[in-house]
Amino acid sequence: MKFKISSGLSYRVKADTTFFFNIQAAQTESQTVTEEQIITTPAKLKLESFDLGIRKARFLRVQVPKTDFFEITYTATAELKLKPVRLKEGNLHLSKISPDAISYLFPSRYCQTDRLYKFAEMEFGSIKTTYGKVQAISNWIYKHVHYVGGSTNASTSSIETITQREGVCRDFAHLGIALCRAISIPARYFACYAYQLNPPDFHACFEAYIDGRWILFDATRMVPQHGLIKIAHGYDAADTSFANIYGEADALNVVVSCEALDKRRFDKQADKLKVVNYA
Amino acid sequence: MKFKISSGLSYRVKADTTFFFNIQAAQTESQTVTEEQIITTPAKLKLESFDLGIRKARFLRVQVPKTDFFEITYTATAELKLKPVRLKEGNLHLSKISPDAISYLFPSRYCQTDRLYKFAEMEFGSIKTTYGKVQAISNWIYKHVHYVGGSTNASTSSIETITQREGVCRDFAHLGIALCRAISIPARYFACYAYQLNPPDFHACFEAYIDGRWILFDATRMVPQHGLIKIAHGYDAADTSFANIYGEADALNVVVSCEALDKRRFDKQADKLKVVNYA
Amino acid sequence: MKFKISSGLSYRVKADTTFFFNIQAAQTESQTVTEEQIITTPAKLKLESFDLGIRKARFLRVQVPKTDFFEITYTATAELKLKPVRLKEGNLHLSKISPDAISYLFPSRYCQTDRLYKFAEMEFGSIKTTYGKVQAISNWIYKHVHYVGGSTNASTSSIETITQREGVCRDFAHLGIALCRAISIPARYFACYAYQLNPPDFHACFEAYIDGRWILFDATRMVPQHGLIKIAHGYDAADTSFANIYGEADALNVVVSCEALDKRRFDKQADKLKVVNYA
Amino acid sequence: MKFKISSGLSYRVKADTTFFFNIQAAQTESQTVTEEQIITTPAKLKLESFDLGIRKARFLRVQVPKTDFFEITYTATAELKLKPVRLKEGNLHLSKISPDAISYLFPSRYCQTDRLYKFAEMEFGSIKTTYGKVQAISNWIYKHVHYVGGSTNASTSSIETITQREGVCRDFAHLGIALCRAISIPARYFACYAYQLNPPDFHACFEAYIDGRWILFDATRMVPQHGLIKIAHGYDAADTSFANIYGEADALNVVVSCEALDKRRFDKQADKLKVVNYA
Repeated sequence: MKFKISSGLSYRVKADTTFFFNIQAAQTESQTVTEEQIITTPAKLKLESFDLGIRKARFLRVQVPKTDFFEITYTATAELKLKPVRLKEGNLHLSKISPDAISYLFPSRYCQTDRLYKFAEMEFGSIKTTYGKVQAISNWIYKHVHYVGGSTNASTSSIETITQREGVCRDFAHLGIALCRAISIPARYFACYAYQLNPPDFHACFEAYIDGRWILFDATRMVPQHGLIKIAHGYDAADTSFANIYGEADALNVVVSCEALDKRRFDKQADKLKVVNYA
Repeated sequence: MKFKISSGLSYRVKADTTFFFNIQAAQTESQTVTEEQIITTPAKLKLESFDLGIRKARFLRVQVPKTDFFEITYTATAELKLKPVRLKEGNLHLSKISPDAISYLFPSRYCQTDRLYKFAEMEFGSIKTTYGKVQAISNWIYKHVHYVGGSTNASTSSIETITQREGVCRDFAHLGIALCRAISIPARYFACYAYQLNPPDFHACFEAYIDGRWILFDATRMVPQHGLIKIAHGYDAADTSFANIYGEADALNVVVSCEALDKRRFDKQADKLKVVNYA
Repeated sequence: MKFKISSGLSYRVKADTTFFFNIQAAQTESQTVTEEQIITTPAKLKLESFDLGIRKARFLRVQVPKTDFFEITYTATAELKLKPVRLKEGNLHLSKISPDAISYLFPSRYCQTDRLYKFAEMEFGSIKTTYGKVQAISNWIYKHVHYVGGSTNASTSSIETITQREGVCRDFAHLGIALCRAISIPARYFACYAYQLNPPDFHACFEAYIDGRWILFDATRMVPQHGLIKIAHGYDAADTSFANIYGEADALNVVVSCEALDKRRFDKQADKLKVVNYA
Repeated sequence: MKFKISSGLSYRVKADTTFFFNIQAAQTESQTVTEEQIITTPAKLKLESFDLGIRKARFLRVQVPKTDFFEITYTATAELKLKPVRLKEGNLHLSKISPDAISYLFPSRYCQTDRLYKFAEMEFGSIKTTYGKVQAISNWIYKHVHYVGGSTNASTSSIETITQREGVCRDFAHLGIALCRAISIPARYFACYAYQLNPPDFHACFEAYIDGRWILFDATRMVPQHGLIKIAHGYDAADTSFANIYGEADALNVVVSCEALDKRRFDKQADKLKVVNYA
């Protein structure tokens, strides 16, 4: 399945500013990215690309002087090769999980696992399989948290979401992660482009480590789970934000799009790809 | 300078439990660790050692069945080769810092940078050099936060410390990190053994990225800055905790020690090593 | 039903200190207090008694100079005349409730109603009667929050309790109040002596305004609801604390007792007094 | 000094709603209110006026059925007779303050005094007189908190304001109150109309209990301190909000005005009325 993705972000830059963008699709085993293009206005800016270690994230650092209009536009074609996942496990044993997964057990900025142990244990602790637990967490969030655009901000974390019970995709993902970790299931943030997201925007889901693989969950249920183009995974939105800005700049506009090149084939795959691993 | 370090942690294990210990001294450019020994009681336990990627941390995973007394003891000799640091910078420019340092700009579990921008800018923003800023942050914490043993817990974060104004070394470090990041200075947590710490215990400081190097700061002023044996650095205590426990266990005892093998030489170095980089 | 109640509080007073005690049983329509005695050690202290307006609370102000041992002891006999309550309402209408009850709709220190609207509406909003709603709230707390002595402190509020899911009687009461107010039911804190509380201590419950009367609820289910001797009601523990201390004093001991003078008669009343109004 | 005050609040009411308005000027020793008029659209609504006990507040309860446009308009003339205050005190002694003032020592919803003891003691504890302390608190807030319209919401409390350092008049007042109480000075919220407030709106200040009188402080420094028409005082905004709404209604508009009838005389009084008691 091929997708055409693009994003355009524009700013008024009031003083010398360093931007770290995280908007490029990731190169992974199941995702091949081609025809990538990055264009900036003004055109001649210092632009660097780099990885941040174990977490998948291709940061762009752009140094922008004062200007009334700065824009960065990214376009690419991404090909997804997802295979159906057959889970066979009982319960994950922490003595066997890969070292890579371990740090996704720890609390992070927006996922204060350390304050949710009792809640998570009480609600989900008695469910038998790891997959069943995460499924129950995702369902609980879908049922108990209202999706309300604009209801939260950059400081909103899982603790607020679990009490105030409203938020956007980012908040749904954070709560999912926090609750998984609270019952000893590694979980991480998944930032992406999403086919059929309405209105179009960047999207966020979460992945839980089940049976040795990272399985995708989207507690918002807003889009099909097999039409996501991964930008990055990480602890939470703190290390996967699409833009980190150091300096002085006002956001003007964000335009995101994600189109499937063969829609009929996409729809046909829905049944086979209910449990997905973005390897 | 050589140091003899050791730690012993004991637990009553009430059900099968997975421990992740982070108590081994790090192998770094400026620190050589030899004569390491890890002993457990009971003796025959599955014990694995591994790294967690870019962050320095040598985790030990130990699987322990139900037992009234489980103990892990670590001893080692660590040799420190610190060189005096001569800082020559004006202000760090984010367009030039190493990619490795960038993720230490982001907020983390105990360092909610995103809620401290105004405070940090107002108090420290006008200071000229990066070193001057971090020095001022460290002094501010020393002056405004009281060291009170037992006053905080595993959920206490920089937001509480800055209002409630009491804490232990961990809280001092978290606040230092949060404030540095809030004025665009990468900062990270530094977990260590500390010579002359009284009472003996694990210790925590923070490192700020200045002039391309990680410079150590200890806002508690409890120990000399050139007698620290690094265990790990990380975002904050969430990923450098000396023990993460998954299962059911009650802590019984923690015994830590750190002795210099040549005390007179250590004292003599104090003047030269006021600004330190644990490379 | 007559009860013999007493409390003794002792302190080391390190500097001139003003105490405000709130330990005397209230004089109400359904509760007659006699044979009251207040004794202090040292004996000659300035001691004043006064009311704090609409909230029932008989504060004692005691001025204590530096002393190694200060104690205040209160003993009294309280006679309760509770009548069975027959509720006949559908839903309370705010246009008809007494002005006295209105301020118990507002958020207070430990009951941050303003952050729990969605949660309360979602969980309890569809229940038909006001009594049914409060009953469901009380049951929800009993089921979802663990009573763990010493798990919370003077800053713990309903927001923490609803996420961390542990606490003591005070926390159970705060959460009950916060949730009632969040669905427009006036609710207040009820500080009391409690017969059969084990171990003996001060106790706290909450009252909800139903059908024009204040009905008692105890989400801890630790004691029979018809053996409570009211000390005070108020917004929450902030204005009904048994001791407010201004100066410098360390608490040494708290001893509380509450005995029924006719235990068999007390037990017999249990069935009739399941829904209680401490008028 | 006479002032002409008015306020008009309009709403779209989507279902039967009970409003509690707190917009009428208070009748006090120093403030006489005449020519009061309350008009509602639609005209025939059930409207009740009542007091809420010891706190000054004249609530209006209005029952409004579903309607696209509901408006309540209040107009009045208020005459202020303020006298210069001459403070003669050293330090307030809690053993002598009036019982009425005592409950203003306790923490409340937006003023979490219990978490600010150390901060307040450290910053203001050593100042000699009570007036000096409160003056220092008010100056500290003015200097360290930025007035940023729209930066906070109905859940913002003094704990957020002291760290995030921005807010509106309500937040400035809450922080002032919290800090006063933290060093044992009774303090309360003062909701008012304010002459020369720009843009016109409801305003909020705080009063501290000094030398037996409630002295007004306005940490925003936005208006002269002798042109305030008191609506209510209370613990904090939780019990003095200009509108509490139970039902379903969207706010459409708020229009507030406050005009001095003799501007020259008002300006002349400024020097004499720098320390003010709205008795």
